[in-house]
Amino acid sequence: MSETLDDEQQAFRAELLDAGVLLGTALPGAYIHSEAFERVVSGVAAVVSDRARSTDHPVVVRVPPVMARSRLLETNYLSAFPDLIGSVHSFRGSHREHAALVAAAASGGDWAGDLTPVDAVLCPAACHQVYPLCGPVVPPAGLRFDVLGQCFRAEPSMDPARMQSFRMHEQVVVGTPAAALAHRDRWLSEASRVFAELGLTTTVEPANDAFFGRLSGVLAAGQRAKNLKYEVGGRTSSTRTLTALASANYHEDHFGTVFGLTTEDGATAHTACVGFGLERVALALFAEHGMTLDRWPDQVMVMLAVGR
Amino acid sequence: MSETLDDEQQAFRAELLDAGVLLGTALPGAYIHSEAFERVVSGVAAVVSDRARSTDHPVVVRVPPVMARSRLLETNYLSAFPDLIGSVHSFRGSHREHAALVAAAASGGDWAGDLTPVDAVLCPAACHQVYPLCGPVVPPAGLRFDVLGQCFRAEPSMDPARMQSFRMHEQVVVGTPAAALAHRDRWLSEASRVFAELGLTTTVEPANDAFFGRLSGVLAAGQRAKNLKYEVGGRTSSTRTLTALASANYHEDHFGTVFGLTTEDGATAHTACVGFGLERVALALFAEHGMTLDRWPDQVMVMLAVGR
Repeated sequence: MSETLDDEQQAFRAELLDAGVLLGTALPGAYIHSEAFERVVSGVAAVVSDRARSTDHPVVVRVPPVMARSRLLETNYLSAFPDLIGSVHSFRGSHREHAALVAAAASGGDWAGDLTPVDAVLCPAACHQVYPLCGPVVPPAGLRFDVLGQCFRAEPSMDPARMQSFRMHEQVVVGTPAAALAHRDRWLSEASRVFAELGLTTTVEPANDAFFGRLSGVLAAGQRAKNLKYEVGGRTSSTRTLTALASANYHEDHFGTVFGLTTEDGATAHTACVGFGLERVALALFAEHGMTLDRWPDQVMVMLAVGR
Repeated sequence: MSETLDDEQQAFRAELLDAGVLLGTALPGAYIHSEAFERVVSGVAAVVSDRARSTDHPVVVRVPPVMARSRLLETNYLSAFPDLIGSVHSFRGSHREHAALVAAAASGGDWAGDLTPVDAVLCPAACHQVYPLCGPVVPPAGLRFDVLGQCFRAEPSMDPARMQSFRMHEQVVVGTPAAALAHRDRWLSEASRVFAELGLTTTVEPANDAFFGRLSGVLAAGQRAKNLKYEVGGRTSSTRTLTALASANYHEDHFGTVFGLTTEDGATAHTACVGFGLERVALALFAEHGMTLDRWPDQVMVMLAVGR
């Protein structure tokens, strides 16, 4: 783990665990959700989907937590974020090798090094599973998706606001550059509006991804210079450092090129997404309204329908 | 992939994909769910939780798709089912090693072999994450959990009824041997009743797990001799071979010993679970009632509240 929690973060973590909102596990950054926490997560997802349904009429899809290994190469994720990937390995050996594996494990040795990579990796971003569905020619009005899926990033942390395993709920568009930008900007506003209605104070800031490698600074600067990424920050575990509750990304022609997507005029399609970190939004709500759902404002409870 | 689909299984798969109920991905056994499929899955989960709430008053928990690596050893899963595990590996090297990794990947080489096992494995069975919460002494009335989580088993198949990534919804008990058996048997009946109300024809059969290794036959025979496992089979992709829609397991003192759980008299606690394979139940419903929710029987739609 790279980070140490400050007093405020530790207090928030303790409050969540003491109240039973989240249950800790032996794996940092993986939590068992209480019924209350899950209701809030589901409620937030329902709010986001309702807003999308009434404006964009998106195709609603739910993506699995694993995807084909080749995706990590196609999307450039292995190149940009190798330290966050989750590659899935399993046992493909003989009975004899199995006996050796179990013996190594029993003696506390490294038993996982000899496993075989299988054709599965953990999904790092829900929308990565959608672009391959879109080709080759996108209709004039563009394609819109409401995507939700369990994501994984290999960054163990004790901060509940930085989970390794979490759900990302995204509003995705594939179309012309203008359509992509308009979608991104409209959903950025919509995210701020939803958060305000839920009683959360948030701010929109330009942002960049945490690229790996020598070119990370250059890549991040390029992202900022072109205003490709914004984050909607709110308070979760810290009042000093806001947590990105949502992230709005304009990918230009990146995914269009990768997956061979064009608009009707033959130009490469552009894409954008606005992703809600559902657990983070839930955490912001517990931070703002307290650990007991019964005491949350009526308006919030009605909106999330968590009082059902 | 070990199996070839017969004509009937191929036809069912094609029907699901053609109707857009499921969307195929590049990874066998991982599907993108349509809104309709997801509604059915959620509806089935809601029915199961409702039945549990009105009888057992279980603690409701939702477990993450990843868990600590040590769990696979504690539960004996690595020993019994090494070929099904999903061990998570990531990149923990230098910038130079990263360049080599990306070059290997770009040239089509094996890039995953040198990754580092991280402290995460995919969850093979939802209830495995619950037993560690229970100790050391279980109250006289026992502990009951309603557990739902995404599970993974590394067995690629083109049969939609054998997904690699799927959700398991379990009713779990920890208590005396009598309590464990009674819970298992009551939920076995309840599962059959729920399926019947949903219009499904099912049969209960003794079963065994598909253990790995030389002792697999002995272990399976032992399971059957002691009537530890039953499956509720129904039609999904085949009329000839039924699919286990639910599985009812009495673990005797296995998890109690592993996690140090005792009843108040100092005896090792026994455990049992009845798990619903939510995607499989949904598939059985699509097989029985057709690919269009609008044409499903009113009673089923009301029960699942999928007509909302």
